[in-house]
Amino acid sequence: MTYCVAMALEQGLLFASDSRTNAGVDHISTFSKMHLFEVAGERQLVLLTAGNLATTQSVVSLLRQRWAHDGIGLRGVSSLYDAALLIGDTVREVIARDVSEQGTTQGIDYGASFLLGGQIKGEQPRLFNIYPQGNFIESSVETPYFQIGESKYGKPILDRVVQFSTPLNEALKCTLISFDSTIRSNLSVGLPIDTLTCKRDAFVPPKPYRVTETDPYFNQIRKSWGRGLRKVFTQLPDGAWFER
Amino acid sequence: MTYCVAMALEQGLLFASDSRTNAGVDHISTFSKMHLFEVAGERQLVLLTAGNLATTQSVVSLLRQRWAHDGIGLRGVSSLYDAALLIGDTVREVIARDVSEQGTTQGIDYGASFLLGGQIKGEQPRLFNIYPQGNFIESSVETPYFQIGESKYGKPILDRVVQFSTPLNEALKCTLISFDSTIRSNLSVGLPIDTLTCKRDAFVPPKPYRVTETDPYFNQIRKSWGRGLRKVFTQLPDGAWFER
Repeated sequence: MTYCVAMALEQGLLFASDSRTNAGVDHISTFSKMHLFEVAGERQLVLLTAGNLATTQSVVSLLRQRWAHDGIGLRGVSSLYDAALLIGDTVREVIARDVSEQGTTQGIDYGASFLLGGQIKGEQPRLFNIYPQGNFIESSVETPYFQIGESKYGKPILDRVVQFSTPLNEALKCTLISFDSTIRSNLSVGLPIDTLTCKRDAFVPPKPYRVTETDPYFNQIRKSWGRGLRKVFTQLPDGAWFER
Repeated sequence: MTYCVAMALEQGLLFASDSRTNAGVDHISTFSKMHLFEVAGERQLVLLTAGNLATTQSVVSLLRQRWAHDGIGLRGVSSLYDAALLIGDTVREVIARDVSEQGTTQGIDYGASFLLGGQIKGEQPRLFNIYPQGNFIESSVETPYFQIGESKYGKPILDRVVQFSTPLNEALKCTLISFDSTIRSNLSVGLPIDTLTCKRDAFVPPKPYRVTETDPYFNQIRKSWGRGLRKVFTQLPDGAWFER
């Protein structure tokens, strides 16, 4: 499994992805699921991946190969919408190739999901959720974030805290707690967590930050969060109908 | 879908269940999923149900019919373990009957899950999770609670707060917040919520409390909870690596 979150907020974009991949609980590896495509001062695109690892790796490899050539691929598109379209086409291309080479799916799920966010000069920052079928949806002010992979455990905290107007630093803390909740409940989601924020219109080279098992900041906020939560509970009143 | 939680804690037992049933999003009804069997001063058994409504209703109807006769059924068993066994048998009886009468499952899932908790004089309070196959597991000091139905959204908050030593009043507040998180994220789980606590060794008639949409206490704590959460977030420090 996998857990990825991306947000398009007032101040800019936020991305986070875990790095555990598995084929059964006895076959676990670590792969980054965050992929950055950048032309300094002109375009920043970040792709988060979930699903079949052979499919997602092939999609990213093809995008990188074509990125090397000016004017085509992700380097050539003039809008994030066209970038999402291109990635959708690439997903379909890879799945069609791998399935037709086999002649059968052999019961294997070749599907993959992607979150694509970024900004191309002249546009606002935009965020897309690309489905295994290659079609996609875009975020909005009302729905400013998307998740792919094991999304349920970490969703309530995002829903209670994150709005379009939430500052990037608050959204990042909330995202790390959402990951902590998911990692505690699902073995197939694991550290390290790759995080990245891109400020609106800044076009400075984004600096990914990788949160590892021993990261003192992550361990500090997960502890403070647990303590803070329990304190909020003790301050909630009992129902008048609760008999001591 | 459904969401039910039951806990066996130091101070006693806690139960909570939503009351929405659905066959597709366009066919939604309200049914209580909490069933109480009691002999004053001698035994208290509480059954929470999830899954196929025809199956769960039939199981409960058969248990009630047999409850009417002394010495057999849930009135006759001498331990909670035997009660779980009897319910498992009844599940298998109902599913075998309904499927064999049809001759085919017609692609329908006849399965149902149950949480059975209670106390029979001479025993400790005990809690069982009964699977659609009729077999079951029992809670422990390390794993003092079970969920059935749509469990993922509401699990992180329980995992962070509830331990065997958690007082019933704290556990009840946490359970209501867990339901609120689930209801916000999944349309197929809905109010009212039936709640019930049974103190260890008390054997006084349990008083179920039903939390409705307009319940002032529920609305107060869900608001205070959201506010409290956001306050904890603003007090968490930013990572040194986060650039403002």
